[in-house]
Amino acid sequence: MSKGKLITFEGPDGAGKTTVLEAIIPLLEKAGYQDIMTTREPGGVAIAESIREVILDVNNTAMDAKTELLLYIAARRQHLVEKVLPALEAGKIVLVDRFIDSSVAYQGSGRGLEKMDIQWLNDFATDGLKPDLTLYFDVTAEVGLARIAQNKDREVNRLDLEKVDMHYQVRNGYLQLAKENLERIVTIDASKPLNQVIAQAIATIQEKL
Amino acid sequence: MSKGKLITFEGPDGAGKTTVLEAIIPLLEKAGYQDIMTTREPGGVAIAESIREVILDVNNTAMDAKTELLLYIAARRQHLVEKVLPALEAGKIVLVDRFIDSSVAYQGSGRGLEKMDIQWLNDFATDGLKPDLTLYFDVTAEVGLARIAQNKDREVNRLDLEKVDMHYQVRNGYLQLAKENLERIVTIDASKPLNQVIAQAIATIQEKL
Repeated sequence: MSKGKLITFEGPDGAGKTTVLEAIIPLLEKAGYQDIMTTREPGGVAIAESIREVILDVNNTAMDAKTELLLYIAARRQHLVEKVLPALEAGKIVLVDRFIDSSVAYQGSGRGLEKMDIQWLNDFATDGLKPDLTLYFDVTAEVGLARIAQNKDREVNRLDLEKVDMHYQVRNGYLQLAKENLERIVTIDASKPLNQVIAQAIATIQEKL
Repeated sequence: MSKGKLITFEGPDGAGKTTVLEAIIPLLEKAGYQDIMTTREPGGVAIAESIREVILDVNNTAMDAKTELLLYIAARRQHLVEKVLPALEAGKIVLVDRFIDSSVAYQGSGRGLEKMDIQWLNDFATDGLKPDLTLYFDVTAEVGLARIAQNKDREVNRLDLEKVDMHYQVRNGYLQLAKENLERIVTIDASKPLNQVIAQAIATIQEKL
């Protein structure tokens, strides 16, 4: 049905995926790719941005892990229906900063919720849609946290305040996802210099799509 | 585990359940019931009230039915964990204005989402907790809508603006739920005068609990 391609960017905080995503667009256009749309989760459309505010509000320390998961899934659904699906139907290449794997890594491995439940919720929200390609930007918790600390422009949100343990678990969750979904997820060593990471991301997209 | 009792108040808009709920508390106390707590969905605690604002915002006309359902379920989870469960553990009688059946009636029968999916989501949010007793206040769509129109103090929200069809379907959903859950749901004819409805609600609670 869909004529476009869905590429998702995944990784722990501080992996640099957002920087790579922004840097990659003009390079992809130069390489002949047209009609590229970039967007992010949670957010991307007004209703999902309102949900994002509830999720990331530093005052919401009482938020239960299942509530957090359900809000991410709700934001995913709205963003998909309003923005991602229409773009795919119009034949666009859609680059999304975070998607289904983030829920498994963060709320599953990070928070300890059942991965089967998260899988069910992802399928409910996406009607079973999977990315054509997922770039997983891999860094250790130490490197990721050090980069977050250096980035003064980045606003601190509720999830940044989690213990270091959580960041280890999130990375382990991603590594496991990458192992279980070799046909879809390509791992990129994001501890390398930015220009090399960008080059590998472009090469991967050119090779796979 | 729980020492208290959970009583939910359900019904279409305009059935008068909120009015009955408020009127019933002093009468229950007079009848010897102590430690009564009343609360409502969606809302009841700060995080759930933030979610409520997103759900009911009249500007959010683009909201997808699955997004709406997921937001109600998220608000349910947070409200349950922060407010309902602690009260039940403290032995209180907890009267809740709307709970699991509202999702089945509104998003299932009203919006056409799969009832099996809603059941799954309700179980996920509540860890399978069911009310000890549910009072279903039954009115036809016509009576309910006429009452809403008369109540000038009631703020109009996004769901009030739905077509009349939706109100018919919601009532049919409730009638089916009542038929399928005879052990838990007691139907009260809410088209009768308020004092009779209140009397029947109290008599039902005294009989069942």
